[in-house]
Amino acid sequence: MTDAKTMEAAVHEYVAAFDAGSPERVAALFSDDASVEDPVGTEPKVGQAAILEFYIASMQTGAKLRLEGPIRVCGPYAAFAFSVLLNLGGKDMHVDVIDTFKFNDDGKVVEMRAYFGPTNMHGFS
Amino acid sequence: MTDAKTMEAAVHEYVAAFDAGSPERVAALFSDDASVEDPVGTEPKVGQAAILEFYIASMQTGAKLRLEGPIRVCGPYAAFAFSVLLNLGGKDMHVDVIDTFKFNDDGKVVEMRAYFGPTNMHGFS
Repeated sequence: MTDAKTMEAAVHEYVAAFDAGSPERVAALFSDDASVEDPVGTEPKVGQAAILEFYIASMQTGAKLRLEGPIRVCGPYAAFAFSVLLNLGGKDMHVDVIDTFKFNDDGKVVEMRAYFGPTNMHGFS
Repeated sequence: MTDAKTMEAAVHEYVAAFDAGSPERVAALFSDDASVEDPVGTEPKVGQAAILEFYIASMQTGAKLRLEGPIRVCGPYAAFAFSVLLNLGGKDMHVDVIDTFKFNDDGKVVEMRAYFGPTNMHGFS
């Protein structure tokens, strides 16, 4: 199993890749056959091409991530709370999110699930 | 589907029931056939009797819960970050946890999963 330090480093790289505006760096965290269900309940994006496309679109808003509190590491899972910070048309907005990452033995994310909904979206109206 | 306010209220009742030291109040949040996987990767406790027994044991330590940040509500799920605060033998300890609750249409939790591991346990050694 991937160790806790590797999983924590992957979460920090996820945040840093958003700071750098690099969807390629985010996609590189995932396995070839990974699935991204963001938000939970929507059709998962499966595979590198779909995941890269999803993060290219996500980053077009200039979204940055701010980690909130310690990363929880549980077996092959990392779970973490964060805010997505956006500025659209000069207006600050943010979304409260909790993600879970499931890792394979090579330290790649095989399954990502993002929990957020309408009550977690602030400044949009 | 259960609405966001009902799900948020259930999470606050979960915290309040720990404050009150009432495993019965916690168990009452779950459906008859609910499963509790705490931590994720362990054998789930299934059904009211097993869940009540689990929370009786959990509360024997006097554990209290401190919610950290907003509850994320996503479809039938609530996800939330918190600390478990313990004082054993005069020593303060805490555990960082993220839980997910999945609700049925009657507002009862049908599936609980708790994410934490050794890196999230503080003051135990």
